Amino acid sequence: MADIPARTEIGVTTGPIRGSRKIHVGPLNVAMRAIDLDPGCGEPPLNVYDTSGPYTNPDARIDIMAGLPQLRRSWIEARGDVESYDAREIRPEDNGQLGPDRSGGVPQFPRMVKRPLRAKAGQNVSQMHYARRGIITPEMEYVATRENLGREALREYARDGESFGAAIPDYVTPEFVRDEVARGRAIIPNNVNHPESEPMAIGRNFLVKINANIGNSAVASNVASEVDKLVWSIRWGADTVMDLSTGRNIHDTREWIIRNSPVPIGTVPIYQALEKVGGIAEELTWEIFRDTLIEQAEQGVDYFTIHAGVRLPYIPMTAKRVTGIVSRGGSIMAKWCLAHHKESFLYERFDEITEIMKAYDIAYSLGDGLRPGSIADANDEAQFSELYTLGELTHRAWKSDVQVMIEGPGHVPMHKIKENMDKQLEVCGEAPFYTLGPLTTDIAPGYDHITSGIGAAMIGWYGTAMLCYVTPKEHLGLPDRDDVKTGVVTYKLAAHAADLAKGHPAAKMRDDALSRARFEFRWRDQFNLSLDPDTAESYHDQTLPAEGAKTAHFCSMCGPKFCSMKITQEVRDFAAKQNQPADAFLASGGPTGAETAAASRAAAIRGMEEMSERFREKGGEVYLPAE
Amino acid sequence: MADIPARTEIGVTTGPIRGSRKIHVGPLNVAMRAIDLDPGCGEPPLNVYDTSGPYTNPDARIDIMAGLPQLRRSWIEARGDVESYDAREIRPEDNGQLGPDRSGGVPQFPRMVKRPLRAKAGQNVSQMHYARRGIITPEMEYVATRENLGREALREYARDGESFGAAIPDYVTPEFVRDEVARGRAIIPNNVNHPESEPMAIGRNFLVKINANIGNSAVASNVASEVDKLVWSIRWGADTVMDLSTGRNIHDTREWIIRNSPVPIGTVPIYQALEKVGGIAEELTWEIFRDTLIEQAEQGVDYFTIHAGVRLPYIPMTAKRVTGIVSRGGSIMAKWCLAHHKESFLYERFDEITEIMKAYDIAYSLGDGLRPGSIADANDEAQFSELYTLGELTHRAWKSDVQVMIEGPGHVPMHKIKENMDKQLEVCGEAPFYTLGPLTTDIAPGYDHITSGIGAAMIGWYGTAMLCYVTPKEHLGLPDRDDVKTGVVTYKLAAHAADLAKGHPAAKMRDDALSRARFEFRWRDQFNLSLDPDTAESYHDQTLPAEGAKTAHFCSMCGPKFCSMKITQEVRDFAAKQNQPADAFLASGGPTGAETAAASRAAAIRGMEEMSERFREKGGEVYLPAE
Repeated sequence: MADIPARTEIGVTTGPIRGSRKIHVGPLNVAMRAIDLDPGCGEPPLNVYDTSGPYTNPDARIDIMAGLPQLRRSWIEARGDVESYDAREIRPEDNGQLGPDRSGGVPQFPRMVKRPLRAKAGQNVSQMHYARRGIITPEMEYVATRENLGREALREYARDGESFGAAIPDYVTPEFVRDEVARGRAIIPNNVNHPESEPMAIGRNFLVKINANIGNSAVASNVASEVDKLVWSIRWGADTVMDLSTGRNIHDTREWIIRNSPVPIGTVPIYQALEKVGGIAEELTWEIFRDTLIEQAEQGVDYFTIHAGVRLPYIPMTAKRVTGIVSRGGSIMAKWCLAHHKESFLYERFDEITEIMKAYDIAYSLGDGLRPGSIADANDEAQFSELYTLGELTHRAWKSDVQVMIEGPGHVPMHKIKENMDKQLEVCGEAPFYTLGPLTTDIAPGYDHITSGIGAAMIGWYGTAMLCYVTPKEHLGLPDRDDVKTGVVTYKLAAHAADLAKGHPAAKMRDDALSRARFEFRWRDQFNLSLDPDTAESYHDQTLPAEGAKTAHFCSMCGPKFCSMKITQEVRDFAAKQNQPADAFLASGGPTGAETAAASRAAAIRGMEEMSERFREKGGEVYLPAE
Repeated sequence: MADIPARTEIGVTTGPIRGSRKIHVGPLNVAMRAIDLDPGCGEPPLNVYDTSGPYTNPDARIDIMAGLPQLRRSWIEARGDVESYDAREIRPEDNGQLGPDRSGGVPQFPRMVKRPLRAKAGQNVSQMHYARRGIITPEMEYVATRENLGREALREYARDGESFGAAIPDYVTPEFVRDEVARGRAIIPNNVNHPESEPMAIGRNFLVKINANIGNSAVASNVASEVDKLVWSIRWGADTVMDLSTGRNIHDTREWIIRNSPVPIGTVPIYQALEKVGGIAEELTWEIFRDTLIEQAEQGVDYFTIHAGVRLPYIPMTAKRVTGIVSRGGSIMAKWCLAHHKESFLYERFDEITEIMKAYDIAYSLGDGLRPGSIADANDEAQFSELYTLGELTHRAWKSDVQVMIEGPGHVPMHKIKENMDKQLEVCGEAPFYTLGPLTTDIAPGYDHITSGIGAAMIGWYGTAMLCYVTPKEHLGLPDRDDVKTGVVTYKLAAHAADLAKGHPAAKMRDDALSRARFEFRWRDQFNLSLDPDTAESYHDQTLPAEGAKTAHFCSMCGPKFCSMKITQEVRDFAAKQNQPADAFLASGGPTGAETAAASRAAAIRGMEEMSERFREKGGEVYLPAE
């Protein structure tokens, strides 16, 4: 991938995104990016949603040893419903050391939180709980400002889209955010022990979000690169990041990531719990799992993937599948259930888990442990049986005012995608859907960011609130730096395509700004307005490196003589000088069919008459001088 | 891109596709690829559609100086309706040399066709003409065998898909092909002067096809690399190739390409005609254009893009667009119409063009010169006005039994894609739709193979017959070798996703075979069954280079302890030993909603009882020994 900024000596990528300026908006200083356009074009800067945190702010001092400023600390304390207490003691097994010796080589984070926060006895600190009591929190206000970008300028935009029953407002008020959270249609994942996070919402009536997965693995990786993977993913637009680390040093690695993350962090606690029992699924116990939840809650994990829908009776339903159970968490729980011939402890202890979630404001991400791992297994009985259980659990969590989102597939051919969305909305009461892809074919390993980007754009359009990215290495190996960027940018464009199709008011502004820049040969503006300015510019420069080409009224695709846009500009200048016969029809907003045909015939005659008349008036001067 | 075979001294890429074997099927020796699977798996070889021609056949002698064998020559002559005649004389301007001197440096093809074929006086040699007279040609038989791959084995497959009114047969007979061509719902583009081509069909009831564009440009390129771009694109699956060359040596370059092409070649003749008048659109004349059609017809071009729908009255309708007219051909004709205040000569001379098409069997690709170049301009009046005119011209061409396909957009947000397909089917009488993308957002230059791959998969599902590829360099510069491969593979996966969703009988076999290989850790089979075995294997090897890893029952994504597929295999082996409670529901084919929930509850109880019973029987032996 082109032009990757070098990592600094502290191991993370800093510096502004090319062509963008960090800005902070409103009383809460909501972070955004402003893209300044060529002064000649007379257009205002375009503000875009920005997930990159202080790392892209040249004025910010970055020190990963210290962690990020605690933006939300005062908001949390001001509510007066939390207390600090002595943290659970860290044990060697928390870092995957079954013996006492620490061989992992990952240092402890210098400022480990020794006194974490939790709800006072009998209190519930979830955003849903506040929302249901009519309280608008600063988190909700922050989200409203963040989601509104540019909508002030929208009087000119006619709403245009198909939202399949979503209720996207023209303007996002803090009260709207509160109401969406109260009814469970959106979540704001932010653990009281992760005050560094910039609040964001996940819900079908907000911008479609994307998640990037990072994490070491039993085979490779080290902590510095893990923290930079976080910084690198949010630089390109990841809205949340899941730490899927396994093996050694999980606890310390996670601490480094959370303390340096401006975005919500999610985990799958069963992975760490399994490490603690040496990878033997049948030796997992509720006590070990519960202890792991507390451990991660105190560190500040914002949402937990819990595979509580993998119930004993559903497991045999997977036996005849082409690819059985492909979710790690799902297969671990399946193994446990079979080994003990017992119902899953995640299902049976669900209400106890909920008590922990509400004490820290951790959101559920109810895992789809039985998601299909191939086209052949899509929408089968095992998958939907689990989904119905997730619906049951959603309503149980909501009884305790705990935030919930639902994880979805997987591998699904295009004609079966919508059924997934419709069933989820129905049985989970519009709780945010969070899908992996889905991949629309199995035959393109090495290109699964694309096979899944297709499904992701479609299911995002249908109503999915967050899309979990897939990298080109899916099914094949560990993603590297370039793979992570490719996955994130692919999912950003899929999410944006979904916002456009849903008719999100602000989405189209960026497409139009970039298209105007393209039409007017403002190459720099075109690069800067794109999701990946570095790659856009470097691709352009591969064939036309000269600085002059950045202002040339052609590109190497067509060459100087053939540029259709150049010719079009002449046509346009010409037509602009005419009393256009087309005006009437343009005003009527695009009639169709016979109507158009008839109108066109009429226009044909009038048009030709008027044009030859103008021609005579002008004494044959048809074209303006070419520049 | 990984592992690109070196170009030979003769400048083109040869050698088998990794893991594939060239085979020739049936009396007509229809070329296909067989992918042999691990003997241990007990599965037969999978035959896949193959566009790569002799270049991937180790037994074939490749000599681009001689061109390919003339597969169709005898079929054409046997029909007795063609005559050979002295070819039109080549002029310097045919090669973009306005002066006499040949400075381009592209040598003439050694065996230039001096006596091309054309229909005898009063004859019509189009496949549509034969089809309508009830004649089944060898071309139609070839297509039937080619499209049928694997369908013999389909008794086991239940049809599953949403085809939006397509009429995809369980089995393709030559008579079915004839009928589709006769009614204009499919075309077989093959000029009588391109006997080297392997017949293929483009139509909504056949596999979705893809086109790759190649061509030099006024700014860069040379002939050897152009011929290899052809060979390289068909290696990865391009079904047709368009030569969009402009500037110098167009005629000679095209001769090299056609003589060495096993796939149909398309062109946009107006580009060359414009070269002949020094790039001054207003100096174009019908005579120069007609002469160019004859020149290219004699060389063997299989389909012509003709922008006959860009009518004078529609041009002002583009004036208020964000990106005006973005089609080169469209803008050239618009400029001509405005300069002369006349209706387009392409429209007015359409029947004369049709006479040429039927004398050589060249198919129309009616160009969408007013396609939208941005999300803002999608589905507007200019675009649909032109589409209605293309519908009118389709029916006019059909009166002369000339084959037609219709070109489509462009830039279209997801919610406006289906309207394009529905209108096209309605006004063009189901003539094959051939679209460029569409791109579903404008904000990702550098990733437009993906923004358009999303739209391409969707419109292919809705009924588009051929998808014109877009490379990562779209809007930015000239695609290089890697870009062409990326574009072709992206479009192959989009076309395949469409075939799957339409319920094409043979499509799912490959997904299932690959998924079984994945589930059983047959890494080599997984690579070989994929669209790009080189990339799949090299990505895998980046983290696990050891040869042993090719047979290891895990990959670096999860590591040895965590592989969900490994755990699943154990679950599966276990469940397989049970008299499964799930059988009844699996057999019933996936009930939904309350039904499932109820069934699941019942299964829960029975399942737990049966399992603990088996457990006792087996004296507590739950797991088979791990391998």
